[in-house]
Amino acid sequence: MWTWTGLFRTERVVFCMLFLLLLCCVGGKCELQETKPAASAELPTVNPIKPFDHGPQAFPEEERANLPVFTMDYPRIQVPFEFTLWILLASFAKIGFHIYHKITIWIPESCLLISIGLIVGGIMYSVKEEPPAVLSSNVFFLYMLPPIILDSGYFMPTRPFFENVGTVLWYAVVGTLWNSIGIGLSLFAICQFEVFGLQDINLQENLLFGAIISAVDPVAALNVFEDIGVNEQTYIVIFGEGLFNDAVTVVLYNMFSFLADLPIVESTDVFLGVARFFVVAAGGVLFGVLFGFVAAFTTRFTHNVRQIEPLFVFMYSYLAYLVAECFAISSVLALITCAITMKYYVEENVSQRSCTTIRHVVKMLGTVSETLIFFFLGVVTITTEHEWNWAYILFTLVFAFIWRGLGILVLSQIVNPFRTIPFNFKDQFGLAYGGLRGAICFALVFTLPDTINRKNLFVTASIAVIIFTVFIQGISIRPIVEYINIRKTNKDLMTINVEIHTRVMEHVVCGIEDLCGQWSHYYWKDKFKKFNDRILRRILLRDNRAESSIVSLYKKLELQNAIDILDTPMGDISAAPSLVSLRYVLFV
Amino acid sequence: MWTWTGLFRTERVVFCMLFLLLLCCVGGKCELQETKPAASAELPTVNPIKPFDHGPQAFPEEERANLPVFTMDYPRIQVPFEFTLWILLASFAKIGFHIYHKITIWIPESCLLISIGLIVGGIMYSVKEEPPAVLSSNVFFLYMLPPIILDSGYFMPTRPFFENVGTVLWYAVVGTLWNSIGIGLSLFAICQFEVFGLQDINLQENLLFGAIISAVDPVAALNVFEDIGVNEQTYIVIFGEGLFNDAVTVVLYNMFSFLADLPIVESTDVFLGVARFFVVAAGGVLFGVLFGFVAAFTTRFTHNVRQIEPLFVFMYSYLAYLVAECFAISSVLALITCAITMKYYVEENVSQRSCTTIRHVVKMLGTVSETLIFFFLGVVTITTEHEWNWAYILFTLVFAFIWRGLGILVLSQIVNPFRTIPFNFKDQFGLAYGGLRGAICFALVFTLPDTINRKNLFVTASIAVIIFTVFIQGISIRPIVEYINIRKTNKDLMTINVEIHTRVMEHVVCGIEDLCGQWSHYYWKDKFKKFNDRILRRILLRDNRAESSIVSLYKKLELQNAIDILDTPMGDISAAPSLVSLRYVLFV
Repeated sequence: MWTWTGLFRTERVVFCMLFLLLLCCVGGKCELQETKPAASAELPTVNPIKPFDHGPQAFPEEERANLPVFTMDYPRIQVPFEFTLWILLASFAKIGFHIYHKITIWIPESCLLISIGLIVGGIMYSVKEEPPAVLSSNVFFLYMLPPIILDSGYFMPTRPFFENVGTVLWYAVVGTLWNSIGIGLSLFAICQFEVFGLQDINLQENLLFGAIISAVDPVAALNVFEDIGVNEQTYIVIFGEGLFNDAVTVVLYNMFSFLADLPIVESTDVFLGVARFFVVAAGGVLFGVLFGFVAAFTTRFTHNVRQIEPLFVFMYSYLAYLVAECFAISSVLALITCAITMKYYVEENVSQRSCTTIRHVVKMLGTVSETLIFFFLGVVTITTEHEWNWAYILFTLVFAFIWRGLGILVLSQIVNPFRTIPFNFKDQFGLAYGGLRGAICFALVFTLPDTINRKNLFVTASIAVIIFTVFIQGISIRPIVEYINIRKTNKDLMTINVEIHTRVMEHVVCGIEDLCGQWSHYYWKDKFKKFNDRILRRILLRDNRAESSIVSLYKKLELQNAIDILDTPMGDISAAPSLVSLRYVLFV
Repeated sequence: MWTWTGLFRTERVVFCMLFLLLLCCVGGKCELQETKPAASAELPTVNPIKPFDHGPQAFPEEERANLPVFTMDYPRIQVPFEFTLWILLASFAKIGFHIYHKITIWIPESCLLISIGLIVGGIMYSVKEEPPAVLSSNVFFLYMLPPIILDSGYFMPTRPFFENVGTVLWYAVVGTLWNSIGIGLSLFAICQFEVFGLQDINLQENLLFGAIISAVDPVAALNVFEDIGVNEQTYIVIFGEGLFNDAVTVVLYNMFSFLADLPIVESTDVFLGVARFFVVAAGGVLFGVLFGFVAAFTTRFTHNVRQIEPLFVFMYSYLAYLVAECFAISSVLALITCAITMKYYVEENVSQRSCTTIRHVVKMLGTVSETLIFFFLGVVTITTEHEWNWAYILFTLVFAFIWRGLGILVLSQIVNPFRTIPFNFKDQFGLAYGGLRGAICFALVFTLPDTINRKNLFVTASIAVIIFTVFIQGISIRPIVEYINIRKTNKDLMTINVEIHTRVMEHVVCGIEDLCGQWSHYYWKDKFKKFNDRILRRILLRDNRAESSIVSLYKKLELQNAIDILDTPMGDISAAPSLVSLRYVLFV
């Protein structure tokens, strides 16, 4: 009818144009900045320190100027403006991938984001723009990492995690140690060959680099694994390993960077390192539990201020993270523990709307941070200084690959006898191949002190490993997993029936174990449940009438159903297979 | 059963202790900072520039130290940590008021927050702590004001607003001009008396001060009015006036602060000032509509990335605000227009969950900003430099009161003949008495250039007016309104029946007007509706099958109902007077 609205049928074209516009805007904004000093030499000089100073007072007294009808003051809004533009660009990229949905099936989003980052970095490099100031490692650790960790911790599948906690810790702690020391020593061996020109890198620096490069990233790996839908056990191990190797990495990083400056290493340092590991890990967990309980306790009182309820989840978990950072203990552990601890109680205390908001915002912030990190990773790859050494970088790639594979193989043989469902070779391959390196490794290498001579080489090697693992392994993992036919996910629809039967089984197993005198995790779970019902729930919940959790699950499912149906367009409602539709028909 | 859990029955006590702890923590944190330099003289000096530097490398080489097992690096986390603590403190205060619910009935929250701010300020002053750096006017305008304005704009009651738009603009534009010039001239007259020692304040400075002091604050006034529940007309006028006088205030502020430096004022400046007013107002609206449409258009494409959907609302409205700030046009107008424009389309495009999240987060950010502003207002009142002049401050108070009253009286007589429901004297009293000054006035006075000699006097006078209006008028308005029996709110439950009848009536009125050849806002509303259905909805909505808005209202009410019932504790469900309970019983 309206022919010109037909234009918008080709909405993808319009969208792409918007995106390209923004891309050029961000990449080329430097032009604006560079021409500005010249322009402002003619215009009245605006004093950037005085806020809300729209120019007039800054006129030189001797020159009579009229009241300006049109003024501009870019420096004042620069920081929030550019920050917003970056986020918008990243979000646009994300929308774009999903409009052309076929891309993301074969190429993981992380690869696409890095690629776009590379393009933007290229534009910035060609116009000699400095990389944005937001990309310091301080910004990464204080502002960009916490949302991702909160997302992981808050939506951590609790049951599979606690069922596999031993395996997860085994891989996280011993695996990371194995990788760090293995890679570090091998690279040190390579450095002894004169032909490569690497003799100035000593053992401590190699070990430090090994510690950095062995940090498996939860973000990069999970992105891929979630898409593929591998089985729960493999998924949770990769997930947990990525999250929990933080404690090991922090300790190793600190220890080796401390040792890197020393001529001789005393044995006390090694013992102190081990002691520090326990301080870092236990401290993180302790802070997390503490803040988690305080958060849960606070939400007892928020029923009159529903508007700010969700805030407490974010404030307390961020505080836990910050305090842990302050004392140099594992902030990632603190945040995860805090999220796991408070989740259960907070969600019972707050209103349904607040609960939806908390979940959505946690997911949203996590997604945005994640998107930005991959994007910036691409940008910084181009704009940073590099030192290229074929031998070192190739051997790093090879050793990272080999030690990871060996580690999983050996550690799985040790842990398999203790597991109910042992990891078969296919699973082990998935675990080894899924060990992608990502943003944490990237941020750690940038925090290296400048006293290390070959810092730039380490940076280049780390980026090479990240790009290699994310691109080559990330892209090839889906076809390989599908080819070797690895066990896929066995997710069921959550139904009340399943829930009831699982619980009955657990009670029975617990009872049998009690008779046999054996204490497995079912025993501890039962003990914790009792402790929880008798004490914790009384303290932390506002309405601690023990509402059966089966009923609350039922309510959750019903609400889910209601919302889903409301989201479907009108015509389909009567076709929806639910009692809600029945009610709808009855009522109308 | 467990006697020690009985302690927590006195949960209020525990909560208060938590709150006091936090209060002392924020107020007295300086102690920690002040003792730190002394302590760090003995400890290894930590370089605050190097991030993630947990101390070790900074050891002097000659001194052999072991690997530290326990380190601390407060400066690194200081900014986000203190920011989080401030928010937490403000949130705690808010919870506290609602636990002791009787307080907030008689004393508005804003007063209580200012009082707590005064206490914290007192603690900080006594230990000679600098006020936190967050309290610059730049932070206020770029970060703290936008959430409040977004909240106001997003939840603006559209129908009453557009029905009263003429009156609102009349009061906002002419009323603000009237107040500014009236107060400025009167104060200038006072300055001519030698006895007061104010001869050095010239006319321009007085007018500038008048412009600052006449900005009625939407936050302060609405806080009180919402509590009382005055009638819709009075409410929307106060609301609109507070929001829309921004354009006038910005222009007057710029003009007078430009003129304050000039010895003589030419007539062209006045004409340029008028021209600038139109640029500022029209530009703001234009940017707002533009960004609003782009935001709505973007959400057409977000159905595959539901996680980040809510983000676009915040990004685009913030961009609108920032761009407007950059060009020194009315950023408040831009943000309000953007919110009003996009709301309708965005809410149809996004999922139900995203919609809940958007609403909740908008409300949450607004509430937090508002709370923080009043709180900081109290803090800064104590910690800032003051210049006290009895005469100037008292006369400012008196003139602000008198001109406000006169203005409303005169302007109402002019506007009443054009209104369907004219303002009676009681309403006019409510309008005049509800003209509280608040945070905008406070932030504007801090942005005064230092070239103004008596800046400190202006600051003191502004704070005096704010405290006076918020405390005296804010506290007394409820008893007075109840005593003179002002028309209260006539809010009905929103039902489908009401909605249908209102629409039918509107159609009928529009038809009658068409026959009579008279064009009122019904005519324009009808025209816009047609334009909207034919063009805008086709472009901006993903699923532009014209779903009857009656049906969507029905769906909204049903979901509301479902959520409300799920929020009630189990025992009460069967008693809930809804079909949902019926279904529940049937199913169980």
